[in-house]
Amino acid sequence: MTQRIDEKFINLALNLSRKNIGKTNENPSVGCVIVKNNTIISTGITAKNGRPHAEIEAINKVADKKNLEGATLYVSLEPCSHFGKTPPCAEEIVKNKFSRVVICTIDPDLRVKGNGVEILQKSGIKVEVGIGEKEAQNINRVFFKSKIENKPFVTLKIATSLDGKIATKNFQSKWITSENSRKFGNFLRSKNQAILVGANTVRIDNPSLDCRILGLEEYSPTKIIICKNLDFTFDENIFTKNPQIATIILCPASQKNHPNLSKFLQKNSQNLAIFCETIDNKIDLENVLKKLHEIGINSVLIEGGSSIITQFLQKNLVDELIWIQAGIIIGNDGLEAVGKLGITDLNHVIKNFQLQKFWQSENDLIRVFKKI
Amino acid sequence: MTQRIDEKFINLALNLSRKNIGKTNENPSVGCVIVKNNTIISTGITAKNGRPHAEIEAINKVADKKNLEGATLYVSLEPCSHFGKTPPCAEEIVKNKFSRVVICTIDPDLRVKGNGVEILQKSGIKVEVGIGEKEAQNINRVFFKSKIENKPFVTLKIATSLDGKIATKNFQSKWITSENSRKFGNFLRSKNQAILVGANTVRIDNPSLDCRILGLEEYSPTKIIICKNLDFTFDENIFTKNPQIATIILCPASQKNHPNLSKFLQKNSQNLAIFCETIDNKIDLENVLKKLHEIGINSVLIEGGSSIITQFLQKNLVDELIWIQAGIIIGNDGLEAVGKLGITDLNHVIKNFQLQKFWQSENDLIRVFKKI
Repeated sequence: MTQRIDEKFINLALNLSRKNIGKTNENPSVGCVIVKNNTIISTGITAKNGRPHAEIEAINKVADKKNLEGATLYVSLEPCSHFGKTPPCAEEIVKNKFSRVVICTIDPDLRVKGNGVEILQKSGIKVEVGIGEKEAQNINRVFFKSKIENKPFVTLKIATSLDGKIATKNFQSKWITSENSRKFGNFLRSKNQAILVGANTVRIDNPSLDCRILGLEEYSPTKIIICKNLDFTFDENIFTKNPQIATIILCPASQKNHPNLSKFLQKNSQNLAIFCETIDNKIDLENVLKKLHEIGINSVLIEGGSSIITQFLQKNLVDELIWIQAGIIIGNDGLEAVGKLGITDLNHVIKNFQLQKFWQSENDLIRVFKKI
Repeated sequence: MTQRIDEKFINLALNLSRKNIGKTNENPSVGCVIVKNNTIISTGITAKNGRPHAEIEAINKVADKKNLEGATLYVSLEPCSHFGKTPPCAEEIVKNKFSRVVICTIDPDLRVKGNGVEILQKSGIKVEVGIGEKEAQNINRVFFKSKIENKPFVTLKIATSLDGKIATKNFQSKWITSENSRKFGNFLRSKNQAILVGANTVRIDNPSLDCRILGLEEYSPTKIIICKNLDFTFDENIFTKNPQIATIILCPASQKNHPNLSKFLQKNSQNLAIFCETIDNKIDLENVLKKLHEIGINSVLIEGGSSIITQFLQKNLVDELIWIQAGIIIGNDGLEAVGKLGITDLNHVIKNFQLQKFWQSENDLIRVFKKI
């Protein structure tokens, strides 16, 4: 019975936590529910930009703190134990004399990892960990990946015809998918800290890469270009359309003295050029992800083109694959989403993606796969 | 109120009619419900192979025919009016003194087309036509297409990877889709009178083209090969695996004197070679469909390969497109399902297919499109 009641309140905490996913910078989005005598007396969600934490939000909403005495706190992630920008949540919980804390999952952040639970237990609070653990880790998969692997979570979005083409043979690509699907694509941008494209995409498709959904414009991601050289005009939309959003150029060290570098950096004081290693004359993508993590980028949306898509897939660097497919056929002289992979044995095709969900979007179908 | 009651019984008749779709030879599969005093007193479905008709089935089940006096007969297709293999159903309905007949749709067969309704009305029976009309025509779309256009209904089944490939570059194709999807493919075979492939498919994939679902083997379709010449070994599975099922070769008239022709015809006395016109050194597919209709084939399932698929799509001869797509990626050096279409303008892509339904099949997705 207690188990079922716990599940009910934990599910509520999990649902709350979904709300600010992608809006809490490098922080996880956490949900919290405070229950006393089987009645919810407060709830909280990690605030935008990451502070205050969900537990503090929920505690602060209760005017008379005496009501917290003996209450149960449900939270989707272990309460923090370290002094960061704010005092640790675990101490706040102790201070307010909660009798029980139910937690979905331990915080993978090495500064916390079990310490939050320890603080609570030492002061006599009953702690339970593990209800809804998988779901909590899935909701904050970006945070978990970055903390555990020190790499950003990579989402690859591919939008094609039924036969896997992203453009006609003369590069026409506007538009293959439906208006509704393109809106979803824009929504994906708002959910990622950064968006990454190759130089050809900038030169040929000339996208602005911002989120154009009303009310979500402020969540437009940092723009990243992978390029072998800096031969742009800098009139491209990526540089001009939203000059307030920082742009990062990932290029080989050979470009350090390129005359266009200072021109690029002047466009926005937050613009950045990161010099990356190359392998076989191609920029090393593992190295790229490491460097992006170092500057605090925990989620990257890859939007193409064909060469970038193929490299990320080939090197098995994609965590989530989102394939939007229109009900049209372009034919084999069209431009392919995925290039040659040199596969002769069906056992060696790319098959480590598991279908998670799918839905119709006008005449298109959207599929979400998870790496297995 | 009457309208709602009529809809209820018509829906039952429609559901019954679905049961024998694909099993009634050139006949439609019809459902019939007999109602008296708001109570169902009998039901009928067109029997396998097409006789008896649904109305006769339903009438025959009622032992005391006096019970039919004043009853209402619900039927998904206009009762027939002509003496064929059996006396006309309309006369049987009159004879049994039904007071009312509710019909989904007029029979497109020129021998019936309205005459059935006329016979009923002339004898004072109240007749209503049109409830569930679209659905009835959709369920018997094969029958309607063949009667109205004098051509078989063409279903194109394509099974590919996410990037639209049907094999690796060295023709490995076993298996791209899941076991469950392949079973569905086999089920499709049982629903079609004939299955059509190109000569390369016979030579490279060597399929047997029969339905291997337990209990449905007897509905294996007639096998059709489109080929420019008769250079087969006749050891291919299509000729040897189910010798009792007739095979049809569609080839140019130039093959009339090919030494292998008599060898092929001896394999099975029902085997047939049909000589077809060619356009630009390719067999004229419009001509093929006309000739297949002439020999009584009303539904054809196209199973490949790439060249046949591309031609059927290019000539807009596909009525229903079923695209089975595995969650794997083969890469652009794999063998494409659809060949070059020479399209440079996105407005000219193949986009006249509307998504009707879709469902998951293990890690694959199956989509059914209707030509619009």
